[in-house]
Amino acid sequence: MTCPFPNGVYLDNNATTLLAPEAKEAMEVFLTSKYGNPNSLHKFGTETHAALSKALDTIYEGINASDKDDVIITSCATESNNWVLKGVYFDILRHGTKNHIITTEVEHPAIRATCEFLETLGVEVTYLSPNAEGILSVEQVRDAITPKTGLISIMWANNETGLIHPIEEIGELAHRAGILFHTDAVQAIGKIPVDVQKSHIDFLSFSAHKFHGPKGIGGLYIKEGVELTPLFHGGEHMHGRRSGTLNVPYIVAMGKAMQLAVDGLEYEEKEVRRLRDKLENALMEISDILIIGDRRHRVPNTILCSIRGIEGEAMLWDLNKAGIAASTGSACASETLEANPVMVAIGADKELAHTAVRISLSRYNTEAEIDYTIEAFKKSVQRLRKISSTYIKHA
Amino acid sequence: MTCPFPNGVYLDNNATTLLAPEAKEAMEVFLTSKYGNPNSLHKFGTETHAALSKALDTIYEGINASDKDDVIITSCATESNNWVLKGVYFDILRHGTKNHIITTEVEHPAIRATCEFLETLGVEVTYLSPNAEGILSVEQVRDAITPKTGLISIMWANNETGLIHPIEEIGELAHRAGILFHTDAVQAIGKIPVDVQKSHIDFLSFSAHKFHGPKGIGGLYIKEGVELTPLFHGGEHMHGRRSGTLNVPYIVAMGKAMQLAVDGLEYEEKEVRRLRDKLENALMEISDILIIGDRRHRVPNTILCSIRGIEGEAMLWDLNKAGIAASTGSACASETLEANPVMVAIGADKELAHTAVRISLSRYNTEAEIDYTIEAFKKSVQRLRKISSTYIKHA
Repeated sequence: MTCPFPNGVYLDNNATTLLAPEAKEAMEVFLTSKYGNPNSLHKFGTETHAALSKALDTIYEGINASDKDDVIITSCATESNNWVLKGVYFDILRHGTKNHIITTEVEHPAIRATCEFLETLGVEVTYLSPNAEGILSVEQVRDAITPKTGLISIMWANNETGLIHPIEEIGELAHRAGILFHTDAVQAIGKIPVDVQKSHIDFLSFSAHKFHGPKGIGGLYIKEGVELTPLFHGGEHMHGRRSGTLNVPYIVAMGKAMQLAVDGLEYEEKEVRRLRDKLENALMEISDILIIGDRRHRVPNTILCSIRGIEGEAMLWDLNKAGIAASTGSACASETLEANPVMVAIGADKELAHTAVRISLSRYNTEAEIDYTIEAFKKSVQRLRKISSTYIKHA
Repeated sequence: MTCPFPNGVYLDNNATTLLAPEAKEAMEVFLTSKYGNPNSLHKFGTETHAALSKALDTIYEGINASDKDDVIITSCATESNNWVLKGVYFDILRHGTKNHIITTEVEHPAIRATCEFLETLGVEVTYLSPNAEGILSVEQVRDAITPKTGLISIMWANNETGLIHPIEEIGELAHRAGILFHTDAVQAIGKIPVDVQKSHIDFLSFSAHKFHGPKGIGGLYIKEGVELTPLFHGGEHMHGRRSGTLNVPYIVAMGKAMQLAVDGLEYEEKEVRRLRDKLENALMEISDILIIGDRRHRVPNTILCSIRGIEGEAMLWDLNKAGIAASTGSACASETLEANPVMVAIGADKELAHTAVRISLSRYNTEAEIDYTIEAFKKSVQRLRKISSTYIKHA
């Protein structure tokens, strides 16, 4: 099929997003004339302060951080995630009294690989598997707590399934048990309300490029009074918590993107959800297709489906030819072509795990794009199943 | 004085630089339509590959890295510096057999503070002081080596004085002794030739915003075959050495900036040096002014001077009113208002260390700007000394 949209149809918004034009506009002047280092005392430095301050205010408001909390700008959520785990390692875990982390099998590789590294240093890690519905229960977390547990790190929403974990309840549990609680909220911000205070969060990671900000900028929320050994030692930037010259243009753009994301939550909940559901309903009409996870427990933009008899990569390639961008799962693991790890974790059989296709919408998708995608998707399935060596229609 | 240049005169290029218009132009399309995640398999991902590849090639060429070496993109030199020190800590130093680092008193805070952190973990650190000329000698390094030395980390050029350390000779020494050698080349790239192979370098840190690239992007060169525990564990980005979604626009811009920097080395050596020397000669006509370091041993763009009787901050403020941006030293330490640490390290008395003013040019400065700066600088000194409570003219 020839794609009627000149730029194609982008349905891979859990991998990365279009930079919002308003965010690009907001940073423009800091890429040209206002290029000073904010730490400098002259006008080239000080003329950046108002915009930086406004951006930080917007980010604090966006996650309901208190003025006494810290929101520290990082280069991405991978940095934030590494910082939390390694910081808590240096502060607490390495001393041995509390040397246990609770996390899940379905975290982003930035958590998973860092936990595996900490295991080589003597840290004990419990990797919880979600239940058959793809969600972690509060009871699972409660049962995993031991007197040695120093940190619980559980993502807010999963990048592949879009399923939302019960963060508020887990936060309350951690808080009562006196255990530090971290959540990777990369896939939650801009999709569902995120409130660090209501959810008893000590650390929260986010990345601007998942909510129409630029790639290469993110943040770490740190609750008032919580210590954390820096990942970047150095100058006195960001209250001495994270050194490095501030990336002024991207911070300003991230502030604007956060504002748009929060302002757009209602649209996301109604209109993005409506388009996602329309697409999902149409996909469910295809025989032998499995949609992962109850849509009521998912963020409004995500569909993870499995098309029996068609390799995920083949499907992607066919969609790509039709101008449609989707994915087989996390772009962060796309170079390996292994079975989708989240589907393996939730107990899908090996064939299903190799046939996963993730579709993730954004507020920039239109009804016409979704209608075209439905048509193209159905044709791809038909064509690929004809040449599939493994597909036999189920009765 | 009223500044005749509408945007002012920017002479703080060791703190940060104007983004080269060509670099901005090169990244533009990746901030708008070509926004895919390079790890994605669809066209939004793959259409970034050619530009990324070209940028990396330019960066490899810019420092004369071999194809078999790794140049890993980081968010800044502070990240690169932390990565080297902490990576070598995990790989070597923590095991105790080789637990000694040799560095200098005049490193950037990203090295200094990280070394101090590693000391709390049992690492031994020798901080060498430069000689009276502000330069470290190869003999000092040789004398500091012990059988336990695992890493030598010495900056290529100092950010405050502009003085160049004998990196090639130190590299050869480290290489012969079988000790890993790291250099923070932040202030060298774009100012003098940098050749990692010729200088026997294992690790080299750089930051784009010091050579007219964007803030928030940099790199770490790692010699072929050298291990280094990641600072960012996670996905398989950058050969598994540094995770995090690639900041495509900034990488492309850094590539362009590197090309312009290397192409501009001859201009830097001749024309920027000529303007710097013209300014320096004029400043030397002022009574009781001290220029730090022999200009033949400095990068071509830097002057660090000390004006007896005038606090550095007062001078900066007066220059700022005249539209001229300079600094009292590293912007990374500007919030503290302490005595300039490099001047203290090279043995300047306390008064001199509080009266330091750093002027750092770039290829964008013009002769007219320098002529204006000479006039404004002299008037500032005259005015401030009149109201100085400490200044008495030396005979």
